[in-house]
Amino acid sequence: MMQNFSEDAAFPIGKLSILLAVLQNHEWKQTVEQMLISQGFKYTIGRVGAMDMIKVVAAIETAGKNNRIIDSENYREVHALYHAIIEAIQSIGRGVVQFGDILRTVGLTFTIVRGEMTGAIAHEGEWIAVCVYGTIGAPKKGFEHEAIGFGFNHI
Amino acid sequence: MMQNFSEDAAFPIGKLSILLAVLQNHEWKQTVEQMLISQGFKYTIGRVGAMDMIKVVAAIETAGKNNRIIDSENYREVHALYHAIIEAIQSIGRGVVQFGDILRTVGLTFTIVRGEMTGAIAHEGEWIAVCVYGTIGAPKKGFEHEAIGFGFNHI
Amino acid sequence: MMQNFSEDAAFPIGKLSILLAVLQNHEWKQTVEQMLISQGFKYTIGRVGAMDMIKVVAAIETAGKNNRIIDSENYREVHALYHAIIEAIQSIGRGVVQFGDILRTVGLTFTIVRGEMTGAIAHEGEWIAVCVYGTIGAPKKGFEHEAIGFGFNHI
Amino acid sequence: MMQNFSEDAAFPIGKLSILLAVLQNHEWKQTVEQMLISQGFKYTIGRVGAMDMIKVVAAIETAGKNNRIIDSENYREVHALYHAIIEAIQSIGRGVVQFGDILRTVGLTFTIVRGEMTGAIAHEGEWIAVCVYGTIGAPKKGFEHEAIGFGFNHI
Amino acid sequence: MMQNFSEDAAFPIGKLSILLAVLQNHEWKQTVEQMLISQGFKYTIGRVGAMDMIKVVAAIETAGKNNRIIDSENYREVHALYHAIIEAIQSIGRGVVQFGDILRTVGLTFTIVRGEMTGAIAHEGEWIAVCVYGTIGAPKKGFEHEAIGFGFNHI
Amino acid sequence: MMQNFSEDAAFPIGKLSILLAVLQNHEWKQTVEQMLISQGFKYTIGRVGAMDMIKVVAAIETAGKNNRIIDSENYREVHALYHAIIEAIQSIGRGVVQFGDILRTVGLTFTIVRGEMTGAIAHEGEWIAVCVYGTIGAPKKGFEHEAIGFGFNHI
Repeated sequence: MMQNFSEDAAFPIGKLSILLAVLQNHEWKQTVEQMLISQGFKYTIGRVGAMDMIKVVAAIETAGKNNRIIDSENYREVHALYHAIIEAIQSIGRGVVQFGDILRTVGLTFTIVRGEMTGAIAHEGEWIAVCVYGTIGAPKKGFEHEAIGFGFNHI
Repeated sequence: MMQNFSEDAAFPIGKLSILLAVLQNHEWKQTVEQMLISQGFKYTIGRVGAMDMIKVVAAIETAGKNNRIIDSENYREVHALYHAIIEAIQSIGRGVVQFGDILRTVGLTFTIVRGEMTGAIAHEGEWIAVCVYGTIGAPKKGFEHEAIGFGFNHI
Repeated sequence: MMQNFSEDAAFPIGKLSILLAVLQNHEWKQTVEQMLISQGFKYTIGRVGAMDMIKVVAAIETAGKNNRIIDSENYREVHALYHAIIEAIQSIGRGVVQFGDILRTVGLTFTIVRGEMTGAIAHEGEWIAVCVYGTIGAPKKGFEHEAIGFGFNHI
Repeated sequence: MMQNFSEDAAFPIGKLSILLAVLQNHEWKQTVEQMLISQGFKYTIGRVGAMDMIKVVAAIETAGKNNRIIDSENYREVHALYHAIIEAIQSIGRGVVQFGDILRTVGLTFTIVRGEMTGAIAHEGEWIAVCVYGTIGAPKKGFEHEAIGFGFNHI
Repeated sequence: MMQNFSEDAAFPIGKLSILLAVLQNHEWKQTVEQMLISQGFKYTIGRVGAMDMIKVVAAIETAGKNNRIIDSENYREVHALYHAIIEAIQSIGRGVVQFGDILRTVGLTFTIVRGEMTGAIAHEGEWIAVCVYGTIGAPKKGFEHEAIGFGFNHI
Repeated sequence: MMQNFSEDAAFPIGKLSILLAVLQNHEWKQTVEQMLISQGFKYTIGRVGAMDMIKVVAAIETAGKNNRIIDSENYREVHALYHAIIEAIQSIGRGVVQFGDILRTVGLTFTIVRGEMTGAIAHEGEWIAVCVYGTIGAPKKGFEHEAIGFGFNHI
């Protein structure tokens, strides 16, 4: 029943997106980026601070388009990224999909990674992972704590 | 508005719980454990595979009690851990707090970390972080993908 | 256990509200309207395009009042219509009750039908059905797809 | 801002899946099936009555695989269908994703339609629509009312 | 903008249902029952302890029927009571509509009150209020805390 | 399985917060306040009318800080109060955590009570209860009905 990915194998797409978001400027980040490049993943990193959820969605979507992780003229790709972003935001919100409306502000590093999924079996085609990591809390310095969100989709 | 923790400082409690869950047996895990020990954090790691959410909740709660991360006879501590677990499960479910009911099965590594929070300002007392990382998907080998969930509470 | 309405009978209230919303200007729409009239249903059709959920709620509620589907001075009737509208919006949102906040825009045809329910047994009194059909998607022409929502209440 | 599909064009994929589920054995159903066939859509219809959501998910997923709407050995296709099913179930539940747990039983006709989407612009590749229509209510004959749910995904 | 009911007037239907559930055997309960009787309200009180939500729904629904608060052969009345019960359960769950699935057990006193609503203006016809009060928590004596839920509907 | 608090004992913290919110200016309110004072509880009462959820959250949070129910410079206490407020708002919203977005307005009396919990066993330390009671409805005088919400946390 335990189905975690093998620890010997190269890190899978989701783990890479998580580490890229979490490690910030730590030296391990370079190793993660090398893994991403050597396996042929497309990826991008960005930051957004906001009280409005719409700004977070827009910042991630725009980064995905401008950095050519997806083709902004292809609705299938936009649809796949959009749902991965919404999943990541539902994930970080833990049951409440709102920030500013309930006086929460977020300061997030986000990553988008696109490429093949390596799991227990070979999967055809590409997938997209979105990870957001940072702080969520009151709009007052120091009155926030860490949170992480993750979304995943076929593309 | 950007409030990510400084990258120079020691990793904060949430990041440590995330890395501990994600790194599995990678060599970096030892460094993470040294950070946990040197900063005086209590922590535990476990695994659970289930189609029933109740088994996941019970596995994490039991690990927290048996490994003395919390005092099982103190309702405040049980209450704090419980809500952090539910947050982590809501986070991994991305809007749907059910597994078996909708034919999803999970194979998860979970971590619980307890100790002081180091943020922009000093925070009195202890906090508890719960991270779950692994796979979620159809009850068929290879037909699942990665997911991560995170909960946090004062204790 | 199968409890679908008989296919021989006249279409029931919910099916009529769905067909009225979906068929737009197709010739079958006239047949649907004849069924509505011959069975004594009150009904109305309208359209609304918006990024703000409040505009969708207001447009449907106003249409129901102005076209005298409900008595706007009777709180029971307003309450019944309001909850049917919210159900329809939850239904079209599929787990997320927000549009503009997550950068989704909707272009909807909505219908309200009021009258008696014909099911397996006779039901006393009147019921109200609200159906919304159209597109939901990014605020960019062509980057949206179809969706349908339905709410129902006693009145 | 109004972006409903042109009424002159052939019915789009979502509308066809809705009509196929709603019309049951009405004579219009033949016309709908002809539209599906002439435009090259793959589709299937089935019925399920249950108090357990897991049975509804399993019935639709199995019908999609057995009738070769999707390739059951391709995780991308299984993933796309699965999320469309969950959307349809969230849509029919109107905010509550449970049936038997809250004493509701459903008697549903479901349809799965796969093919190209025709909207305001040409969309590359295939999409999948899932529609469920029928009754939801107390587990007592006649104490239920109509409901409809719809999910949509790229495949 | 402040629209609380006048404090001079007799207690309204919802307040009576709340006090009846909360006061238990306190002497004030008699005064509340006198208010209910003198204003012509139908009401009932019951208790239920469960880990399964379905048992809570069934206990309240059965009490409403057996004590003739509603006519069990009238679907409109059953529908009105059912939705008021679901609202009360969503209210007590505070965002999570599950008990046993997440290892929570409830010990509840519930009340159902039916009659006219007295607000700022006269409202035609009858309404139904459902209140549940008690404890929610771990399935271990003393490891629970208070909670209250409330639902309301026209009938 | 029935775990309601003994009716003989002094009212527990949650029941006191509920009665304080519900009784308004009724003469019983004085008795409730005497119970609060004699048991050493800190408490406050306030009112807020709004269409924006953010105003309700802010009003309760500000009252808790200004009336020194919590220490506004202590993040743990702010975090505990914040989550109790969000629980109370989720509780009053019954499944939908929005007011103005769906054209609902609220007129609420809110209470915050802080102190020790007396249950089946002795609980160490302090807890915080938030109760909101009032009306929710359309933004039109008289077109609203009663609702109550309750949140609880360790502090």
